[in-house]
Amino acid sequence: MQRITIDTLHDHIGEEVTIAGWVDVRRDHGKLIFIDLRDRSGIVQMVALPNHAPAHALSGTVRSEWVLEVDGIVNKRPEKMVNSDLPTGDIEIEITSITVLSEAAEIPFEKDVADINIDTYLDNLPFTLRREKSRAMLRVQARLIQAFRSFLVGEGFAEIQVPKLTGADAEGGAAAFEVQYFDHKAYLATSPQLYKQIMVGVLERVFTTTSIYRAEKHSTARHLNEYTSMDLEYGFIKDHTDIMDIEERMLRFMMDDLRAHSSREFEMFSSEIPVIPEKIPRLKLREAQEILGAEYGQKCAGEPDLEPQHERMLCEYAKKKYDSDFIFVTHYPVSKRPFYTYEDEEDAGYTKSFDMLFRGIEITTGGQRINNYEKLVENIKKWKLNPEHFAYYLQAFKYGMPPEGGLAIGLERLTARLLGIENVKEAALFPRDLNRIDTLLSK
Amino acid sequence: MQRITIDTLHDHIGEEVTIAGWVDVRRDHGKLIFIDLRDRSGIVQMVALPNHAPAHALSGTVRSEWVLEVDGIVNKRPEKMVNSDLPTGDIEIEITSITVLSEAAEIPFEKDVADINIDTYLDNLPFTLRREKSRAMLRVQARLIQAFRSFLVGEGFAEIQVPKLTGADAEGGAAAFEVQYFDHKAYLATSPQLYKQIMVGVLERVFTTTSIYRAEKHSTARHLNEYTSMDLEYGFIKDHTDIMDIEERMLRFMMDDLRAHSSREFEMFSSEIPVIPEKIPRLKLREAQEILGAEYGQKCAGEPDLEPQHERMLCEYAKKKYDSDFIFVTHYPVSKRPFYTYEDEEDAGYTKSFDMLFRGIEITTGGQRINNYEKLVENIKKWKLNPEHFAYYLQAFKYGMPPEGGLAIGLERLTARLLGIENVKEAALFPRDLNRIDTLLSK
Repeated sequence: MQRITIDTLHDHIGEEVTIAGWVDVRRDHGKLIFIDLRDRSGIVQMVALPNHAPAHALSGTVRSEWVLEVDGIVNKRPEKMVNSDLPTGDIEIEITSITVLSEAAEIPFEKDVADINIDTYLDNLPFTLRREKSRAMLRVQARLIQAFRSFLVGEGFAEIQVPKLTGADAEGGAAAFEVQYFDHKAYLATSPQLYKQIMVGVLERVFTTTSIYRAEKHSTARHLNEYTSMDLEYGFIKDHTDIMDIEERMLRFMMDDLRAHSSREFEMFSSEIPVIPEKIPRLKLREAQEILGAEYGQKCAGEPDLEPQHERMLCEYAKKKYDSDFIFVTHYPVSKRPFYTYEDEEDAGYTKSFDMLFRGIEITTGGQRINNYEKLVENIKKWKLNPEHFAYYLQAFKYGMPPEGGLAIGLERLTARLLGIENVKEAALFPRDLNRIDTLLSK
Repeated sequence: MQRITIDTLHDHIGEEVTIAGWVDVRRDHGKLIFIDLRDRSGIVQMVALPNHAPAHALSGTVRSEWVLEVDGIVNKRPEKMVNSDLPTGDIEIEITSITVLSEAAEIPFEKDVADINIDTYLDNLPFTLRREKSRAMLRVQARLIQAFRSFLVGEGFAEIQVPKLTGADAEGGAAAFEVQYFDHKAYLATSPQLYKQIMVGVLERVFTTTSIYRAEKHSTARHLNEYTSMDLEYGFIKDHTDIMDIEERMLRFMMDDLRAHSSREFEMFSSEIPVIPEKIPRLKLREAQEILGAEYGQKCAGEPDLEPQHERMLCEYAKKKYDSDFIFVTHYPVSKRPFYTYEDEEDAGYTKSFDMLFRGIEITTGGQRINNYEKLVENIKKWKLNPEHFAYYLQAFKYGMPPEGGLAIGLERLTARLLGIENVKEAALFPRDLNRIDTLLSK
């Protein structure tokens, strides 16, 4: 018989079907043996009865994570046996025969328990990712990145594949990992920034979903050494407010997509899909600092950036005052932003740049960039960088570049904040950190 | 006025509109000055007439690649002036005013000439990618990767983001670039193979579009040191023929997508979008070698792999005999494939693996994998590798893995072969090779 997936069982009530998947859990009541079977589409309860003797006997031996192909009859459950928490809670498969596709070793611990230590979790990812919540997280993350791309394709953006192996650290700020490239030194990209800007000169509107690398010795719940950046960049903008406008529309599109497809996943995390207000609040950094002083007693006026606790407070403020889970902070000082950031002509010393904060943490950086060749060269020198190292990048501006800007969203941070996952490592597939590349690094 | 894009001009005949873009070329006939303006959506001829004096004067000064915002009236061209090669060949913009958004330096050479030397092309990519054909190639490449994803999402596959930074060379074969990872050595991924296999245990059907790295000292028209791999992997297969079946359906989907959206790009390259036959021919390596002997006089019987000229000959043969641009070659010897490749029980010494050749070159490798834990451990030892280095990967098989397999398609090679681009470097955005990361590497 052709295998069907668990999410289609309701179309086959009373029929014999073939399903296949992993044993999620087995409960042996002697005569009755219950097996929950899991496939990519869902989970269903099966029951082995003594009248199907070989299948019943085999059911007595299978254990968690064994892989089975099962023939069985789809039965409606009696009203009082319905489990309304499960999409298949109103049906049950009466097993008629079982083929074992793969046995499994005894599992090291019950995978769906709530309180797994983070190290245990990371040490056993090939197993722990099979948890219901991990799989739900991965489904949400896949939808996010796909909705990001769909929205932008609809807006006339073209997807590009950018290099992750670069000749120099792009922004001259973030620490880069060094690569031995034949007889030369190369570096892992800390951002696709310079490439996406070059490509505005070619395709006008571009986006990329790419891995980036930060050789930062952080060991926090906010940082990853390898992460996925969703980047866009486009030309013919008025200023940085265009970029904030498009982010509002894009986030609304992405959240609507989640509302349509991922409500079960959000229920699982007891988290809510945020509503994007008509206008996400926008504050200059200095205004934000005044509020932090007046409302939270923080002495941070004049500081060039926000501390993590300030990001949390501003998000609390935005929620309270504007009922928004998001807030834009604009006009960071020129000295704190990369050389290509556009200075506001009407607010000297401050840039047409922004961060977006979401539920306590920065998830986006963006802004208008300098598109004038001479000004860029001047700034590269002012930042004590060598224009010769940027000769390639500078070609794009030498040969005509419209006013342009863009933004980047960290996929793992966005996923984590949406689902209320405390440690961003649990929102990455196989996170790399100071001490771990899959397994612990030995000295 | 709100800017509109060039592809929508036909909706505004007789109206005054605002458009913006790059000067593609200017032809100065004194009283009449013609400017071709290029934006992301197309190109249109504009004309400056002396009756709009300031715009006419400015038109006399603009040069190629200057960025302009132009107000003008959309006029129908007289019948005999229609250029039927261009979508906008039946209209012309009568310029009423011009704003210069960015000037440009004098261009180093005419970008759309046919015979640019490859080094000149690569040295000037931020400029040369603005060529009509380069932009067309990028649009086709974006469609290919998006169609790959769309097809698989429709088949119940989940997208995953895999690490490119790994603890060891995944397959123990291909040369890997070394990365200084804090106080440790790490490597750039030569393939997402082990991660996608792990994820079959989690999500059953997965795909990823990712960058991979080969530290191979090739300097050929076929090889890149960094390229984009479109990978899929899934469980509950019968054998490797399932994987070939899904590739046939997927390629048909992708080619239909190109037929619907990219015919102009293919015309530009004088290339045809291939038709996927009902069944793509499938030959065992040994059968292919017999044909190479009988039809082409090649003495290659018993060789473990095909040489580049053999790939070309087999494609010629498939075209002649089966009218197919594609051909599968299966059953490579166990000794020539990675440790995880499944040996055919009915053809000992040969694997349930395949390559797919397309227009003279291999674009896919795939097959069934070993899903039995003990057999995998045994093979890792037989391949003189250390099972401890694979402890993480092996967990996935220890805890239950269905029969599974998958494939990988090289995006740049596929793009190049589709469009008839000789050197795969011209089908990569910013190709890395032995001597070049954007600019030439100095010692």
